[in-house]
Amino acid sequence: MSQFWSKKAKEAKPYVPGEQPAETDVIKLNTNENPYPPSPMTLEAMHRAINSDLRRYPSPTVTELKNIIAAREKVAPSNVFVGNGSDEVLAFAFQAFFEPNKPIKFPETTYSFYPVYANLYDIPFQKVPLNTDFSIDVENLYDSVGGVIFPNPNAPTGLALRLGAIERILQQNTNQVVIVDEAYVEFGAETAVKLTELYPNLLVTRTLSKSHALAGIRLGYAIGNEVLIEGLERIKNSFNSYTINRVSLAGAEAAFKDEVYYSTTINQVKQTREWTSEALRSLNFEVIDSTANFLFVKPNMNAKFLYESLKERGIYVRYFNESKIDGYIRISIGTDAEMEQLVEQIKRIISS
Amino acid sequence: MSQFWSKKAKEAKPYVPGEQPAETDVIKLNTNENPYPPSPMTLEAMHRAINSDLRRYPSPTVTELKNIIAAREKVAPSNVFVGNGSDEVLAFAFQAFFEPNKPIKFPETTYSFYPVYANLYDIPFQKVPLNTDFSIDVENLYDSVGGVIFPNPNAPTGLALRLGAIERILQQNTNQVVIVDEAYVEFGAETAVKLTELYPNLLVTRTLSKSHALAGIRLGYAIGNEVLIEGLERIKNSFNSYTINRVSLAGAEAAFKDEVYYSTTINQVKQTREWTSEALRSLNFEVIDSTANFLFVKPNMNAKFLYESLKERGIYVRYFNESKIDGYIRISIGTDAEMEQLVEQIKRIISS
Repeated sequence: MSQFWSKKAKEAKPYVPGEQPAETDVIKLNTNENPYPPSPMTLEAMHRAINSDLRRYPSPTVTELKNIIAAREKVAPSNVFVGNGSDEVLAFAFQAFFEPNKPIKFPETTYSFYPVYANLYDIPFQKVPLNTDFSIDVENLYDSVGGVIFPNPNAPTGLALRLGAIERILQQNTNQVVIVDEAYVEFGAETAVKLTELYPNLLVTRTLSKSHALAGIRLGYAIGNEVLIEGLERIKNSFNSYTINRVSLAGAEAAFKDEVYYSTTINQVKQTREWTSEALRSLNFEVIDSTANFLFVKPNMNAKFLYESLKERGIYVRYFNESKIDGYIRISIGTDAEMEQLVEQIKRIISS
Repeated sequence: MSQFWSKKAKEAKPYVPGEQPAETDVIKLNTNENPYPPSPMTLEAMHRAINSDLRRYPSPTVTELKNIIAAREKVAPSNVFVGNGSDEVLAFAFQAFFEPNKPIKFPETTYSFYPVYANLYDIPFQKVPLNTDFSIDVENLYDSVGGVIFPNPNAPTGLALRLGAIERILQQNTNQVVIVDEAYVEFGAETAVKLTELYPNLLVTRTLSKSHALAGIRLGYAIGNEVLIEGLERIKNSFNSYTINRVSLAGAEAAFKDEVYYSTTINQVKQTREWTSEALRSLNFEVIDSTANFLFVKPNMNAKFLYESLKERGIYVRYFNESKIDGYIRISIGTDAEMEQLVEQIKRIISS
């Protein structure tokens, strides 16, 4: 530890993302990427953005992309914020809406970046227990002092709350901001975007990484009351005037105009998810009903052993060495061929 | 102001970047962009990165780009940090190395994002006066409590410190981090990178925005002792695992391999700068000797009037409504044709 580090740097507990193996001949089911490529229209728009204008800064206000997102989500452009991945959007939201000395609440088992942000920005937090079936116990999220955040569907479980349940959380936290992290919502859960009209304390965050197969361009956004959006802009504009590069902007704008392609690939992922669930259940694995592009699975053997055995066979899944979920693995949904290979290799591990 | 904003959001004083006009038929000399396009090799590499791999996250460690920068700067990869523009690198550095209750020092006239970061992260600061010729008074930067930051060359003056002067600042702040912001260094100042071997408290920041004509891809980096780099990584990995998208990574990697092209365009900018300095001096403008890709100029008329008159004629320059420099304008160096047009329009404004 360095004498030159700030207290903040010393006390930071950095997030550890899923492995990104350099080998390309592996089956990568560990970071919830989409198995299908971005649409040809998206790639074409990105090619067109590669020109001499790259010498210029991108738009600091990303007006065109905000207009497109607003039309898609049926809100005004002033209800839209755009960031360099939804992780950046969440980091700004923690700074804009949560405070030191006011504990926030989030589920005990959830996206493990939340406590990382909280540590970085000195925001105290309370992890609230889930029900024994891993569903979120809504009442545990009532009456927060400093705010609430949870993914819907939750990660890594894939379980979703219904809108009525989300509305009760909002009604029991009227003086605090409630962030619904909808990174995986397009794979089957209900979006809370329409509730942003009724609840000025609701921020919904989204990403193009999974649903639009664009993890590589880093593009996230948020929808909320314009006062919340202004709060995010104040933080962003105190941090970096230009967070989104020109080529990613072009790709995102095109992706939102090509929804037929993406709804087709999303439907394919959902079908493959159902096939995989059935196949794993027939091996006596416990599979939680998922509305995301991954499955949370309790194998009929040691979970860490299965994770390691699959890795030896060139299949990456995610294992969390964390209390209450260390008996499970999380499997991203790949192509049919990849999932057939997964099931085949699991059968071989069982019989070996 | 919103009841939902944190104290941080309420008290933020966001940076206001130079105007980014939507019109394309203007002469844009207000945000120090390079007038020449990125190299064909750079653009070609970016095209190649537009493929189905965009569905995957980029490298969280950006190892390949770090290796290339390390070779260029003659340091180890562990001495290199990469960020989404040098503004992001600076924002991380303020968090990693500066502290609440320990005032930092920077010049009174300098890059106006520094006080914005300081406000956002609760870091007190002392603005130290420049000499009357706008040069940095080195002794004023001695004995800081919390650290030092300054650009070399300074902005918006374009004046550079020699390495000996920087070394004295380092020797008089051995327990604090000193950040030398080298956004414009490739246009004529001496880099302090080689001092990073001797001084573990020195961080040098850089950008591809100006020298490599890549403001549109958002790519900045820092060089320093590996302990400082680790401090930056701890903050970055508590904020966003993947800050650099795949296409910008490919462009930056290629740009550093194509230095002949960029040194040619940098030399052209320097020649145009000298021509423009002479032309403006012959109009009785005071022109400060610049080692950057811009000129800081005191016109023989009201500076704001000149800024506004040029804007009416489709020429954007930068005017700072700020004590001590409100008699000046900052003019980015464009192509020869653009600068001839600038001088011609100034002549017409003078005679009208």
